Amino acid sequence: MIVETFAQFSKMLANLDKILEKAQKFSELKKFDAANLLNSRLAPDQFNFIRQVQIACDTAKFAVAKLTGIEAPKFEDNETTLAELHQRISKTLEFLSTIKPEAWKGWETRKTLNPRKEGKYLPGDEFLTQHAVPNFYFHMNAAYGILRHNGVDLGKMDYLGVITYRDL
Amino acid sequence: MIVETFAQFSKMLANLDKILEKAQKFSELKKFDAANLLNSRLAPDQFNFIRQVQIACDTAKFAVAKLTGIEAPKFEDNETTLAELHQRISKTLEFLSTIKPEAWKGWETRKTLNPRKEGKYLPGDEFLTQHAVPNFYFHMNAAYGILRHNGVDLGKMDYLGVITYRDL
Repeated sequence: MIVETFAQFSKMLANLDKILEKAQKFSELKKFDAANLLNSRLAPDQFNFIRQVQIACDTAKFAVAKLTGIEAPKFEDNETTLAELHQRISKTLEFLSTIKPEAWKGWETRKTLNPRKEGKYLPGDEFLTQHAVPNFYFHMNAAYGILRHNGVDLGKMDYLGVITYRDL
Repeated sequence: MIVETFAQFSKMLANLDKILEKAQKFSELKKFDAANLLNSRLAPDQFNFIRQVQIACDTAKFAVAKLTGIEAPKFEDNETTLAELHQRISKTLEFLSTIKPEAWKGWETRKTLNPRKEGKYLPGDEFLTQHAVPNFYFHMNAAYGILRHNGVDLGKMDYLGVITYRDL
């Protein structure tokens, strides 16, 4: 299930990439600067849209690194446009695509560290379930919610993406 | 991992229950009718807070039913107060707590049906990863985002709850 969980993270990031396109089209239709959306937030003490996208990407990226021991590429957090956010997602997806199934060996018991929790760890399985998955969806949904609140024409299908049902 | 995934759903619902208490306290502090929060939404065509809580509960409940074959209790969707939403969460947690580990046997390949997709199915593992998990977090976060936008004093720690780090 670990491979499927990260395949789903990739799928969600690809969905987010398409959501960015909808934001772009909305800004063109309404003739406003897309930067207005990028700097939006739902509360004054919440990260803005750009930061939510960056953290969604990083949650997936660092979860791979923590659970496999593979070093994650460093990104600068300097995106200021939709085009640059597309690139951020693209670079993240590229990294995720390089992880081979055998890289996950022993992930359940691997000790994952958190720079804010010195001297502490979580076993990989607890880190994934209690931290990585809820955090990833937290920032995905914060990004979605900011655009939704600002009138971008989004629905749950944009968020979930295509689900390949099978014939009974 | 299936048992842990549903334990996490229960944990998130318990966190949501505490978030409801924060909403209650905020309404008392600011002296407004808590119903104002319950009927809030981030966009006019989004479900309101009450419905988000109901669906978060139901996503967990129906996922159990679909993956184990155990019949889920029916709830009426008639909550109109915070007290009733507490009860909804409580009843859902009670149902989730009755599921024994052996009930999950064969969940990965169990054919899950969707009333909106006649003649189609998803194998249990694909249903869990592509549908149940992202949907659960979608409605959890929609509920969180609605309160956050309305000024309730919430942070990610309220959402994630206590994570039991271990000593290295």
